Amino acid sequence: MTRASRLRVDWRASVGLVGTVVKYLSVTLAIPLAVALYYGRDVVTFAVAIVLVAGIGFALERVDPDPDLSAREGFLMVALTWFAVGIVGAIPYLIAGFGGTESTLAHPTNALFESMSGFTTTGATVVGEISFERHSHAVLLWRQLTQWLGGMGIVVLAVAILPELSVGGAQLMDAEAPGPGIQKLTPRIAETARVLWLAYLGLTVLEMVLLYGLHLAGLAPNMDLYNAVAHGLTTMPTGGFSPEARSIEAFSSAVQWVVIPFMAAAGTNFALVWHVLDGEPRRLTRDAEFRSYLGVIGVLTAVVAGLLFVGTGIETVQRGIPPIAGQLEDSVRHALFNVVSIVTTTGYANMDFNTWSDPAQYLLLFAMFIGGSAGSTGGSVKVIRWMVILRSLRSELFSTVHPEAVSPVRLGGRVIDDRAVRGIYAFTLLYLVFFVVATLVVATDAWRVGYRVTAFEAMSAVAATLGNVGPGFGSVGPMNSYLDFPTTSKLFMTFLMWIGRLEILPVLVLLTPAYWRS
Amino acid sequence: MTRASRLRVDWRASVGLVGTVVKYLSVTLAIPLAVALYYGRDVVTFAVAIVLVAGIGFALERVDPDPDLSAREGFLMVALTWFAVGIVGAIPYLIAGFGGTESTLAHPTNALFESMSGFTTTGATVVGEISFERHSHAVLLWRQLTQWLGGMGIVVLAVAILPELSVGGAQLMDAEAPGPGIQKLTPRIAETARVLWLAYLGLTVLEMVLLYGLHLAGLAPNMDLYNAVAHGLTTMPTGGFSPEARSIEAFSSAVQWVVIPFMAAAGTNFALVWHVLDGEPRRLTRDAEFRSYLGVIGVLTAVVAGLLFVGTGIETVQRGIPPIAGQLEDSVRHALFNVVSIVTTTGYANMDFNTWSDPAQYLLLFAMFIGGSAGSTGGSVKVIRWMVILRSLRSELFSTVHPEAVSPVRLGGRVIDDRAVRGIYAFTLLYLVFFVVATLVVATDAWRVGYRVTAFEAMSAVAATLGNVGPGFGSVGPMNSYLDFPTTSKLFMTFLMWIGRLEILPVLVLLTPAYWRS
Ligand SMILES: [K+]
Ligand SMILES: [K+]
Repeated sequence: MTRASRLRVDWRASVGLVGTVVKYLSVTLAIPLAVALYYGRDVVTFAVAIVLVAGIGFALERVDPDPDLSAREGFLMVALTWFAVGIVGAIPYLIAGFGGTESTLAHPTNALFESMSGFTTTGATVVGEISFERHSHAVLLWRQLTQWLGGMGIVVLAVAILPELSVGGAQLMDAEAPGPGIQKLTPRIAETARVLWLAYLGLTVLEMVLLYGLHLAGLAPNMDLYNAVAHGLTTMPTGGFSPEARSIEAFSSAVQWVVIPFMAAAGTNFALVWHVLDGEPRRLTRDAEFRSYLGVIGVLTAVVAGLLFVGTGIETVQRGIPPIAGQLEDSVRHALFNVVSIVTTTGYANMDFNTWSDPAQYLLLFAMFIGGSAGSTGGSVKVIRWMVILRSLRSELFSTVHPEAVSPVRLGGRVIDDRAVRGIYAFTLLYLVFFVVATLVVATDAWRVGYRVTAFEAMSAVAATLGNVGPGFGSVGPMNSYLDFPTTSKLFMTFLMWIGRLEILPVLVLLTPAYWRS
Repeated sequence: MTRASRLRVDWRASVGLVGTVVKYLSVTLAIPLAVALYYGRDVVTFAVAIVLVAGIGFALERVDPDPDLSAREGFLMVALTWFAVGIVGAIPYLIAGFGGTESTLAHPTNALFESMSGFTTTGATVVGEISFERHSHAVLLWRQLTQWLGGMGIVVLAVAILPELSVGGAQLMDAEAPGPGIQKLTPRIAETARVLWLAYLGLTVLEMVLLYGLHLAGLAPNMDLYNAVAHGLTTMPTGGFSPEARSIEAFSSAVQWVVIPFMAAAGTNFALVWHVLDGEPRRLTRDAEFRSYLGVIGVLTAVVAGLLFVGTGIETVQRGIPPIAGQLEDSVRHALFNVVSIVTTTGYANMDFNTWSDPAQYLLLFAMFIGGSAGSTGGSVKVIRWMVILRSLRSELFSTVHPEAVSPVRLGGRVIDDRAVRGIYAFTLLYLVFFVVATLVVATDAWRVGYRVTAFEAMSAVAATLGNVGPGFGSVGPMNSYLDFPTTSKLFMTFLMWIGRLEILPVLVLLTPAYWRS
């Protein structure tokens, strides 16, 4: 028996399908090319990029022109897809950089970081100066488009692929919101995906229309068409890339109030969102996870708003910024906006929360571990996992007192089976262990090159990349960037964004010998 | 039906038994009284303390003169016992303080902190100045004796009571090392306890003899009889209180080499220790947990010793301390001593590891979560729990690839049942969540009063108190104290030491309605 015949995983099929994805990606590059033509900058960049990306796509596709995928290849294909699009998505940044725009993205590590940050909808940036002087409208649009495309991928991943692979308790995520019904890996997925993408596209367009409407109504002077499109592209994927260096702080409070419900919707299970659009809004309020999700946002917002209102929420008052303390609307808006942004892992900010006092910052760091709902485009742990863990702990305590009694874990009237509970524990614990170890790695790497980061900064950088949140605190705050970290740290954080987005376990599966042998 | 009759928990029996424990505690106060008589200081302190503690013990005992304890009352009794001895153990400190020795222990919060730190064998201190000028030999001996007595309690707790209560996977800890056999809560416990206490007492006396022997042989000038006794009392309980302000750094390297194996033994399952003393040393090397425990110590020591040897391990070279870099014995001794001390949660130090570089400190913080072996006097998570988690993760990954295959979690040839695995996940996750939340609480409380602590200091303070390690980093380093924290933080950390020592879940059980109702 040869070594090849012992391999049961058809890696060629996975690579072939990844090639197809890359091929389609080259088509989407036509959008920034159109923008480049309109503004007259970076036309060559995107023309060359389309040829290169399409070439790579066709080449990969030729590895297996007629791929036949079974569940097992799903793991490999998912991991390879995000890896591949992260790499080819960096091509436009690199070409634009060679063109001499003096962008920090001309460095390959930075280009890869920014691209992976886009496709994983993380929103952590290494752009030194976000401005149209430094970057063309087309390049910045590509940055936003990567998030929107990444979000499309995650909708399928979260609602159709991960539950099917039954890993880390992801099987729950579907069944909790018995949506369009996802049973088999092939034809049903396509149908489900179409329905959910329609919801995703609809909300994206709706937000763009509302934002531009505010502009036309005179309520948002700087929310021009480009900005309306840019923010529409980065809200629904919980992305957070903004073409404004000061994120949503640059816009009027009317804009901020409009963005909040869209971030909240992006952190909701898309199967539920689809039901609401389909005329069944009561499915939403009946859903146990959705109620907890709103509850968590409500409690955190109330606490932060209270801190801001009484004046202990802000440590340093920045010049030119009016005081928030004592202002009810200001306090509530800033608390709600940033709490929703962090809980859903969007990563927008309507003020630099580095100016907040320690307790308010600690609450945000804590919120980074919540991570919106299952089946949403949000990252991190997810509300439903925390709910299952809390209920399992309660059942553990109960059965300690009554060893003879059977105490199953229930959620929304359903009994969660033991294997799903164990999977959820495994994932969440692994997530926390990754967080602790990665923090030590990042802090050590920074120490190695003499770059000063506090433990809190390192913690927030890891929580924000592993959890696909985007901005952290201090040097990686919402108005700063990850640029000054050593190259090794940036590559490591690129890895964290990738493995966090894929919910860790599907990648670890690839490292087991059992996966590759029959 | 009256409310009282619905209560099934016989709390009076628990309180009565706690009274008995307190009564016996008053007898142990005769030891510091004898020392007080010998040195002629604090005689009245201990005479009054004996009367008070005995009085409290008799009063509590009268709540139920003939207690009949079932498994359920076990939880309450365990929680109440450590709570009660923590409080009454503070009495000598308070009385000595009223006597005008200007000790920081005259403050009730500090006295309680120090007493709880003793009985939980944590070794975190709020003594401002550890010296015989400031404190009598008798008071410092009481401080060490609380740890030795606490260690006796933990031996019974870890090997006999917790496994019986089947909480947080503790049921494993016994079966893994099929020791003297612990099945039923009453007569067998007494027999098991007697055997294990004998091992505990024997090793304690052996260490005292060896340490004093070094002194007599001229290899340890300042290791006089008092010091030999003091360190013997605080090693086997993985306690870490030393009458020397600079801990074991104050002694010769011969002393340091002698202390290392005793710390390592204190972090070993006591049932295994007993087998070795009983003439079956091969039980030790066959034990899966013991091998991993040694392996972890070996790897961490090698890395730290390497850092120290090449010179990147130490950031600040203190005046009067000879350089360690390039010195093989020095590098290995300092690495091994502090790694063993932290992994076993003893908390001794043979140098101020605050002078270490960031990566070396991060490794020690990481080591605080290991926590020695199950069935030892060590705190924190324990090696066996991490082993079960790792194997369960492997089995989770395997069954993701082969959903049809049964993949049980095995350890040392035995299959670990699902309930134990779930209990271990529940405990470990709860431990990490407690760690994160408590860090935020401590940092916020310090911020509230304007006391400057870094996130890393707060993390280490929580890891060191919740894990019963003792010293942390920065302001709570091994040569410093917890004195400057606000009173609220010190009370909170007293709570952390208590709940960490009791392995969290037995305390949480008391908060469930199911515990109190039939
Ligand atoms: K994000
Ligand atoms: K200790």
